[in-house]
Amino acid sequence: MAERATPDLAISARWILPVEPAGATLEEHAVLVRGGRIEAIVPADRLPPMDPERIVSRPQHVLLPGLVNAHTHAAMSLLRATTPGPALDAWLRERVWPLEARLVSPDFVADGTELAIAEMLLGGITCFADMYFHPEVAARVARSSGVRAVIGVPIFEQATRWTSGLDDSLGRCLELHDRYRSDALVGTSFALHSSSLTTDATLAHVRTLADQLQCPVMIHLLEAASERPRVLRNHGRGPLERLEAAGLLNDLLVAVHCVHASAAEIERIAHGGASVVHCPASNLRLGNGIAPVSTMREAGVNVALGTDGAASNDSLDILAEARLAALLACGSTGNGHALSAHEALGMATLAGARSLGLADVTGSLLPGKWADIACMALHGPAIEPVTDVAEAVIHAAGRAAVSDVWIAGRCVVRDRRLVHIDTVDLMDRCRHQGARVVAALAANAGQ
Amino acid sequence: MAERATPDLAISARWILPVEPAGATLEEHAVLVRGGRIEAIVPADRLPPMDPERIVSRPQHVLLPGLVNAHTHAAMSLLRATTPGPALDAWLRERVWPLEARLVSPDFVADGTELAIAEMLLGGITCFADMYFHPEVAARVARSSGVRAVIGVPIFEQATRWTSGLDDSLGRCLELHDRYRSDALVGTSFALHSSSLTTDATLAHVRTLADQLQCPVMIHLLEAASERPRVLRNHGRGPLERLEAAGLLNDLLVAVHCVHASAAEIERIAHGGASVVHCPASNLRLGNGIAPVSTMREAGVNVALGTDGAASNDSLDILAEARLAALLACGSTGNGHALSAHEALGMATLAGARSLGLADVTGSLLPGKWADIACMALHGPAIEPVTDVAEAVIHAAGRAAVSDVWIAGRCVVRDRRLVHIDTVDLMDRCRHQGARVVAALAANAGQ
Repeated sequence: MAERATPDLAISARWILPVEPAGATLEEHAVLVRGGRIEAIVPADRLPPMDPERIVSRPQHVLLPGLVNAHTHAAMSLLRATTPGPALDAWLRERVWPLEARLVSPDFVADGTELAIAEMLLGGITCFADMYFHPEVAARVARSSGVRAVIGVPIFEQATRWTSGLDDSLGRCLELHDRYRSDALVGTSFALHSSSLTTDATLAHVRTLADQLQCPVMIHLLEAASERPRVLRNHGRGPLERLEAAGLLNDLLVAVHCVHASAAEIERIAHGGASVVHCPASNLRLGNGIAPVSTMREAGVNVALGTDGAASNDSLDILAEARLAALLACGSTGNGHALSAHEALGMATLAGARSLGLADVTGSLLPGKWADIACMALHGPAIEPVTDVAEAVIHAAGRAAVSDVWIAGRCVVRDRRLVHIDTVDLMDRCRHQGARVVAALAANAGQ
Repeated sequence: MAERATPDLAISARWILPVEPAGATLEEHAVLVRGGRIEAIVPADRLPPMDPERIVSRPQHVLLPGLVNAHTHAAMSLLRATTPGPALDAWLRERVWPLEARLVSPDFVADGTELAIAEMLLGGITCFADMYFHPEVAARVARSSGVRAVIGVPIFEQATRWTSGLDDSLGRCLELHDRYRSDALVGTSFALHSSSLTTDATLAHVRTLADQLQCPVMIHLLEAASERPRVLRNHGRGPLERLEAAGLLNDLLVAVHCVHASAAEIERIAHGGASVVHCPASNLRLGNGIAPVSTMREAGVNVALGTDGAASNDSLDILAEARLAALLACGSTGNGHALSAHEALGMATLAGARSLGLADVTGSLLPGKWADIACMALHGPAIEPVTDVAEAVIHAAGRAAVSDVWIAGRCVVRDRRLVHIDTVDLMDRCRHQGARVVAALAANAGQ
């Protein structure tokens, strides 16, 4: 029998939550990594012979798959806590869009995206799906920071400060897709703002291209209660019907929010194989309500988790979203077992990967997948005693417990510090951008 | 004019959120402390001449009043994450009470209470209201740890492992009240489990004693949907009517939960001057729902925040409860302005102090009050840029940002470490208790 090659890295920990198989908890095991991928998970006392310097020991810790933030607008981290508003439509039209008109530029996107990535990495997020202006800048920043990302290219029909119209938007999407088509970490997707802002012709066009490229199509769907009546009035059918008619209701579709999806719509989403991204904090903050996650899961929908942008959340914290999702599922159904800690963790990892077409790549600690791993320290007065590891991760520990993070086997956070991002320089740039934000807020208020 | 005596301590910070006056934010000010009390808040460049060693500078930080956890069962921190259950009644009868029957002892209460206090101090909580067995032990532990506490003495009519019956319970309450009557930090209260477990005679008895001693009376009220019909069936009137009939609906009453309070009941609570303690995470976790906080606040009810015990929450984190309260108020009313960050901070501080009869003592940074102060570091990729300090505190920073805590002018947390609690020894004891909990869980499961 041929001897196995020596692993590049072994990470041993008190506990491992591999997510696959579902509900499993391993004690005193180690993840073996070779060539950036998970080679095996073995009992910690049966490591193969290897250089001790390549063994990382985390004796009070848990290893879990790197978390997946399946929906954000990363650069909006520069607009954190600036724009609480009474309701989604007014918030966009009166607060966000005027601010963006003053502020958004390639530099703004570069600094904001790097800020978001820094926050996400420190919180155990190894993969995110983005949707914002200047996606070519976001892709470049993601690539250089070593995070896994699916960069959504916004498809605008009108001219914006970024593109001259539909053809330009689509062309940029294809160009970006081409540039990253063999990249191990960065991929692309089509990002439609919402059904109410997109014509049938564009939906059909995007469908054709997405099918050819096998790229995800992201769209905000049924976020506010006002969406269905408005779309019905303007387009003659509801938002989901329009996607269905365009052939977009399939497993490439990433339907974000779905707060106001009816039981019948949920059945059709499930039947089409589309994913939903649940963004509970943003949905509450903007007064949109609570998405019917338990109904979706019972119908067989793949429900992932997203933070949304920092302007409607303030915190790109997927562990907080997972806890909130579990609490809301229990509180809104009257059933304290509606969403277990293991299930919430699955939403924060594997379901996110699946929504982005990356279930073979990341989202669980299965041999053959890339070694995207978060490590959390489960000790101290806020966490111990630990009697159930998944409960401790979701309900007690929080992202402050994240100690180390690896992406494709490369360490990006060590002892709660970013390895490859110069935090001092980044925060200097972000404070400078923050001053611009304050000036823009004042200028808008003065108009 | 007589010269002012030199302060014992000056704490200067980039920002101060004093909570009184409501909505105020000060920049580059300092809190002057003398004899444990707040003497004044002055611009940071106008400190009186004083020993530089007594000046604490926190240049990227915010000072706020120490947080108040207005309802918990501190010792249940040892049962953290052990007992998720489908619904309140079954959870208590099938999970919690059998576990407590095996585990609760003075040592269990001492270790669990100290664990809870350690977690709370590190999270900026300077005052908590407790309700658990062996309150004399909890009072002793609170006293020695230097935290401010109102220890609820549970009033049981039946014999328990702690008391032989009603007279014994009441006697212990009076005895404990006497022992701490002139203590600057620890006070006592009457703690009734719930209306369904208390007779009219006992309610009347407690009312008389509470009026004489001017002690708060805490009770779980309208927590689950099942409470009103059960109490109606067994007692001929509803839970609130019973308190009203006993004369308990007054400003000494601390009504915990009130998830299922009707609009008419809320009006009566407001009219009586009672406080409500909102425990949003516990209410969701046990499937009880979302309390109508906006209706309560509009009616003029003083609404404080509580974590409840760790067995139904897992995290004694009042900043998380404040954020959750704000999110739920917005999400459940459809109004993104339903509860501002300043208002949520007021609930987490002054409203809590007011509910416990301590509004003249703590809960805001007013001269004359004790110097109960939390300091949070508002820097780093998860928090900056800071454009609105209260928004940053409630929605972005979280308790991981708490750096220092003072209670009555005495530093209890410095640079995120407990000053007076031996964490190593505490965690050793808690791990030992945790092993007992695991054994008790197994024994109960095996029955």
